[in-house]
Amino acid sequence: MNLNYEECLKACNECLEACNKCYDACLREDHVEMMVECIRLDRACADACAFAIQAMTSNSPFMKEICQLCAEICERCADECAKHDHEHCQRCAESCRKCAKACREMMM
Amino acid sequence: MNLNYEECLKACNECLEACNKCYDACLREDHVEMMVECIRLDRACADACAFAIQAMTSNSPFMKEICQLCAEICERCADECAKHDHEHCQRCAESCRKCAKACREMMM
Amino acid sequence: MNLNYEECLKACNECLEACNKCYDACLREDHVEMMVECIRLDRACADACAFAIQAMTSNSPFMKEICQLCAEICERCADECAKHDHEHCQRCAESCRKCAKACREMMM
Amino acid sequence: MNLNYEECLKACNECLEACNKCYDACLREDHVEMMVECIRLDRACADACAFAIQAMTSNSPFMKEICQLCAEICERCADECAKHDHEHCQRCAESCRKCAKACREMMM
Repeated sequence: MNLNYEECLKACNECLEACNKCYDACLREDHVEMMVECIRLDRACADACAFAIQAMTSNSPFMKEICQLCAEICERCADECAKHDHEHCQRCAESCRKCAKACREMMM
Repeated sequence: MNLNYEECLKACNECLEACNKCYDACLREDHVEMMVECIRLDRACADACAFAIQAMTSNSPFMKEICQLCAEICERCADECAKHDHEHCQRCAESCRKCAKACREMMM
Repeated sequence: MNLNYEECLKACNECLEACNKCYDACLREDHVEMMVECIRLDRACADACAFAIQAMTSNSPFMKEICQLCAEICERCADECAKHDHEHCQRCAESCRKCAKACREMMM
Repeated sequence: MNLNYEECLKACNECLEACNKCYDACLREDHVEMMVECIRLDRACADACAFAIQAMTSNSPFMKEICQLCAEICERCADECAKHDHEHCQRCAESCRKCAKACREMMM
């Protein structure tokens, strides 16, 4: 349990960072019109991670439900980011998948 | 749909305010040791409302899932607040129930 | 004081909504490459309003400092939105200016 | 600059965690009536760190102003926590001071 908590918190911190860096980098891309869905999901996913981080660290009674929702959002963000070759997108997709997995393990 | 959105946003704004006012008032009560669960749930519920408000207004692809989670958290906060006679708790319980209902209507 | 609080909370709620609607609408514009700064500031401003709303309603000891920062961010977002003819940008600029003014009045 | 960014992000992540753990532990203390100011500041400080983390990682144009505000809030939270002998308060005070210092270095 404690191990899952530590892993999940670390994964959420890293995923939030990867999503927001991808968001910033997408807004700087030449073909920003290709990145619209990615920008939208990056923000949604960073916000979900921030919400999960607050819930986990404050021992919220809704920690598991929040981690479940965070896992779903991470998976959708990973699917979108994986479509783009930019390094920031590929990195973000990887962080999102890792975070989704850690959130699902937290729920057990 | 639009009507449900407007109602739900208003209910979330009011619920966030009622929860945070109840949180502040609980921390000022003489018998704060009786209010511990209320304080905890007030914060968790205000945070859930804030998350739902951001999701709704930014047209997040996860709006419905977030409103569902918000409804569950509102219901738990309402149950706790309803146990206490303080006016701020009774008012918060009422706002939470109204918000839970509006969130469930948003999801349809 | 109470009057300023009510006005400021209302202005922050409306500004958060206007910023997030402008963010969503900018991401749907044909020339999204023209809207990059607007998207970025809309999100930053919505997040600042959300932070101010939580601080005001929970009677945070840092309410005034947070409202001051929110006012600065609103003003920058208003300046950017005002440059664009889209109705959502013009509306957002107006909401941001109103919110900046209300936040500055809260601080007195 | 990059070094300061990495240090500051790490310090904010750790401070958010320490504040929320202290918040949770304070709510479990026998003499919760002694911990009221600590509970309030822990939440305010965790929220400020969360806001700073989002700003830093998304390359917000207001990163420095937000880190300055975060530093001030961390210092007030550290002062309050330092008054209490509980291990969670002492740990939180230390994390808050470290975070305040890192935020001030980010601003240069």
